[in-house]
Amino acid sequence: MPGEQSTNTIDASRIDFLNGLKRSHYCGSLREGHAGEQVVLMGWVQRRRDHGGLIFIDLRDRTGLVQVVFSPEIYREAFEKAESARSEYVLALEGTVRQRPEGTANPNLSTGEIEVLAHRLKILNRAKTPPFYIEDGIEVDENLRLRYRYLDLRRPEMQQALILRHRAAKSVRDFLEENGFLEIETPVLNRSTPEGARDYLVPSRLNPGKFYALPQSPQQFKQMLMVAGFDRYYQIVRCFRDEDLRADRQPEFTQVDIEMSFIDVPEILELMEKLVVKLCRDTINLDVVQPFPRLSYQEAIDRFGSDKPDTRFGVELKDISDIAAGCGFKVFASAVAGGGQVKGINASGCGLFSRKEIDDLTAFAAIYKAKGLAYIVVTEDGVKSAIAKFFTESEMKDIVSRMEGKPGDLLLFVADKSKVVADALGALRVSLAEKLGMVPLDHYNFVWVYDFPLLDYDEEEGRYVAMHHPFTSPREDDLRLLESSPGQVRAKAYDLVLNGVEVGGGSIRIHRRDIQERMFAAIGIGEQEAVDKFGFMLEAFEYGTPPHGGIAFGFDRLVMLLAGKKSIREVIAFPKTQSASDLMTQAPGYVSPGQLKELSLKTDIKKSPKNNE
Amino acid sequence: MPGEQSTNTIDASRIDFLNGLKRSHYCGSLREGHAGEQVVLMGWVQRRRDHGGLIFIDLRDRTGLVQVVFSPEIYREAFEKAESARSEYVLALEGTVRQRPEGTANPNLSTGEIEVLAHRLKILNRAKTPPFYIEDGIEVDENLRLRYRYLDLRRPEMQQALILRHRAAKSVRDFLEENGFLEIETPVLNRSTPEGARDYLVPSRLNPGKFYALPQSPQQFKQMLMVAGFDRYYQIVRCFRDEDLRADRQPEFTQVDIEMSFIDVPEILELMEKLVVKLCRDTINLDVVQPFPRLSYQEAIDRFGSDKPDTRFGVELKDISDIAAGCGFKVFASAVAGGGQVKGINASGCGLFSRKEIDDLTAFAAIYKAKGLAYIVVTEDGVKSAIAKFFTESEMKDIVSRMEGKPGDLLLFVADKSKVVADALGALRVSLAEKLGMVPLDHYNFVWVYDFPLLDYDEEEGRYVAMHHPFTSPREDDLRLLESSPGQVRAKAYDLVLNGVEVGGGSIRIHRRDIQERMFAAIGIGEQEAVDKFGFMLEAFEYGTPPHGGIAFGFDRLVMLLAGKKSIREVIAFPKTQSASDLMTQAPGYVSPGQLKELSLKTDIKKSPKNNE
Repeated sequence: MPGEQSTNTIDASRIDFLNGLKRSHYCGSLREGHAGEQVVLMGWVQRRRDHGGLIFIDLRDRTGLVQVVFSPEIYREAFEKAESARSEYVLALEGTVRQRPEGTANPNLSTGEIEVLAHRLKILNRAKTPPFYIEDGIEVDENLRLRYRYLDLRRPEMQQALILRHRAAKSVRDFLEENGFLEIETPVLNRSTPEGARDYLVPSRLNPGKFYALPQSPQQFKQMLMVAGFDRYYQIVRCFRDEDLRADRQPEFTQVDIEMSFIDVPEILELMEKLVVKLCRDTINLDVVQPFPRLSYQEAIDRFGSDKPDTRFGVELKDISDIAAGCGFKVFASAVAGGGQVKGINASGCGLFSRKEIDDLTAFAAIYKAKGLAYIVVTEDGVKSAIAKFFTESEMKDIVSRMEGKPGDLLLFVADKSKVVADALGALRVSLAEKLGMVPLDHYNFVWVYDFPLLDYDEEEGRYVAMHHPFTSPREDDLRLLESSPGQVRAKAYDLVLNGVEVGGGSIRIHRRDIQERMFAAIGIGEQEAVDKFGFMLEAFEYGTPPHGGIAFGFDRLVMLLAGKKSIREVIAFPKTQSASDLMTQAPGYVSPGQLKELSLKTDIKKSPKNNE
Repeated sequence: MPGEQSTNTIDASRIDFLNGLKRSHYCGSLREGHAGEQVVLMGWVQRRRDHGGLIFIDLRDRTGLVQVVFSPEIYREAFEKAESARSEYVLALEGTVRQRPEGTANPNLSTGEIEVLAHRLKILNRAKTPPFYIEDGIEVDENLRLRYRYLDLRRPEMQQALILRHRAAKSVRDFLEENGFLEIETPVLNRSTPEGARDYLVPSRLNPGKFYALPQSPQQFKQMLMVAGFDRYYQIVRCFRDEDLRADRQPEFTQVDIEMSFIDVPEILELMEKLVVKLCRDTINLDVVQPFPRLSYQEAIDRFGSDKPDTRFGVELKDISDIAAGCGFKVFASAVAGGGQVKGINASGCGLFSRKEIDDLTAFAAIYKAKGLAYIVVTEDGVKSAIAKFFTESEMKDIVSRMEGKPGDLLLFVADKSKVVADALGALRVSLAEKLGMVPLDHYNFVWVYDFPLLDYDEEEGRYVAMHHPFTSPREDDLRLLESSPGQVRAKAYDLVLNGVEVGGGSIRIHRRDIQERMFAAIGIGEQEAVDKFGFMLEAFEYGTPPHGGIAFGFDRLVMLLAGKKSIREVIAFPKTQSASDLMTQAPGYVSPGQLKELSLKTDIKKSPKNNE
């Protein structure tokens, strides 16, 4: 080819900043078997000790630590350079691996049998004293960690968390590849659609006055890929929700997005279980047993008071409405008469709770709108309870029997509308189990919840809204109820719950225009609005759309649980704070008036900020 | 576990929309060996023919076509249903594979030896007549294809392009995994920074008046990951540029983003070549030879008039400035005297070009600001040229000799400033080669271009700007010129060029605060501005930053070239138009006044659009 005269070497002078050194091994990889070998290492000073006229440096890289020794008698020049080394200095060094002297091995270190005697040293970069220790288990304000995230991420536990995340992504991809899924990318600059959470908007310069929206999920695109016949699609994809960041939410999050054609609920659940089994094995070497337990939404609510049941412990809800209906205790009887329920949980062994403790439980239940918390203590000598007098002996016996009460148990009851009963007792159940140490922290209990209601009545808006999203298919056998009893229609929707946390959710989608139109009508989207907002989907349904469905896993949450972390911020390299700010880069920031003008935009801020650039 | 009482079956009534059928094979997978087997297929009607009392349907899925036969005598019910089937109907069917009758095999079809005799048929969905044929090589307005992208993507060539893209991503990931790279995700909601192209902005609701910017690349984050000690990072990541979409650009594009620590230029080029070699083999079964040719920027400009040289053909530029300097042709002599150049290319065998053809070449060169195009025709009897009279016989002989002119050749010359000479002749060279059919279309010529200038003088802004980005390291041996002769400083930057298209680019980065500050100063970013905009990077450099560098490949372009396509829109599932619109979803769109109010924004549009929702 015409380039043949060109040289294929790049001037050697250019690599002088590494002093001609080329790394031969990672620090954490050295073992006894390397003894006698000459190695080149590069990494950070974890710790320097001067002892017996020698300098010892623990050198750190992604793989771990290794001890390096500098001797003034053998290699003076390297020793003298090492004298200036401080914590977090970046070093390149050449040395010989040798067995540590008798009795000085460190069994806590995978490289603890050996050390490296350094011949040559190059200090690649210096470091100031970091604002916190580069080690695990530090107690430091999270904001400081986020501001110096590049230092925080040096800590081994953060490195391991992100390496686990990497392995999780690889495991998921490998599984999906093996099963014929195609990775197909969908746009980030989307159209804002009604329904769902609040969109992040992006003004369009080329279309003044118009906006893109960042995707809350690639829902419509993945459905279009099914219409296009790609059959099996996946993507590990960033999604966005402009929500108030209470609890453990992030404005941008990652989901494993999956869609399949020509399948129904059983096939997708079975395949996704296999994915999860492989994921658990590949990341934390955990064996999960298939099939996962499956609970209908109604059963989950009935037994656990939640559609995200934590099944690692019992303390299930028991319904005593039938007994309560005819009893003399007004609060119970009228709750049932008013269409509500009376249910209880057995706080086993809590019969000796103090008045204060029970008051705290009552206050906790009140957060979930329970107006009160009735209780019965079971003793060897019968029950102790302020409400005992309202019940016949037979009623009380039935109640204790229903609650499986044994001497020493505390039975707690809520009488209210079904939703309040479920919410309050569901939360109380989890709180009590945690408090009593009943939660086996090493268990990974996956459970499918299915047959969700298709629609949810929104009191504020005075209309039904889609419980998942408006493309979710109703069960065929409930279709006839869509207009007459919309609240009773069950959806072909399913969630995957792990230890009480929703880690995935999906559904079979509507694939017929007539049903999609009925769905839109059910949630109050008129014909014209449907065409305006979702016209292309309705149109697509007329050109041969296959039956299809899918699922999306919350990747951050899944990795968080696998890594045993309490917050998704611990498994995201550069997370944002509750005010959706990045403390390291100071995003978001002010932009120039020129930038706004190009976008035909004005901010509505009364006072111009002082620092507006 | 507590969920044990729950049933693990989901009501069978729910799978009735597939009529109890479960796909056993993909259409395109059937072969002679399947003869006699009962199969269940699902797919789209490519074509229906009625012949000899039978109905023949070519059924299509992602894998290809298979012929299905419906016989009224053997399976009447299936036949009767098949009578209503039209093109693009979605079918599920059960049948028996059988050898096609003698003489009816179709050698153009991988399934052409067999057919499927259908026993049962379920029409899963109907279809209107599509607006264009679902087949390869259609001549249809691209806008129509984009509006009905879900149909366009059904065409086998589009399916194959996206499957190739999928395989390309997998190949890249596999390679990087094997070589110790960690996939780490970086934020999409970034801070807007100066330098570079125009940002897409995202107003922040929680921080009124402030904006995020979508990343043009994760440059700063990947450098911070190196500071954090992750050593080797990669990501296949979406990036954004709000540019006017001339040529083949997209507002969002995908890049393979890579960064490594403790390496210099030679190591990264070698490793990236291996990646590309594997990619070519995995996607199009092409063998590419390592090492790739390497050209310094100056050599690329000198020989090819471009830093993106297409090396599939010769027609290299030859410098005749030394001869021209003293000649009698004023245009030539004064160009050299003014610090410019005179260079030429040999349009071999074009000696008989008409006056009109040469005028066209001159007009083409003028696009690149060449004020004229001198030419010499070489014949058996010497040269023919309007400018011959200005040269001595010896000068002319030297010129023809330098240009390697043979009888029948047309020699073309531009005399101007170096940049104009390179641009005009570089473009002319490519244009001529294409016109003369000198470009071997099956060649894949990779070439590295390195030693780019660090800085480029921006006439408009009256200052130097970073040619790549401001984090690019100068060559150590040019550092001393950074203040005195900034234009002469070479960068440790490299581009990978394939067939004249830049498919990747990267650099070794600055890893010392003092050099980064000198770089900012060189491009006119003052101390305070540097701290305001890039403070965290400057700070990070003080806490032990390792030497590091990386590269980013333009994934869309790379896949386009591998797929043999002319536009990146052919390898993107849902591309946008030149006005950055999505014709399928109608993005961008108007948003509600409520949405803008929440963002403290007003649009600056005089007349409210009629359809503002």
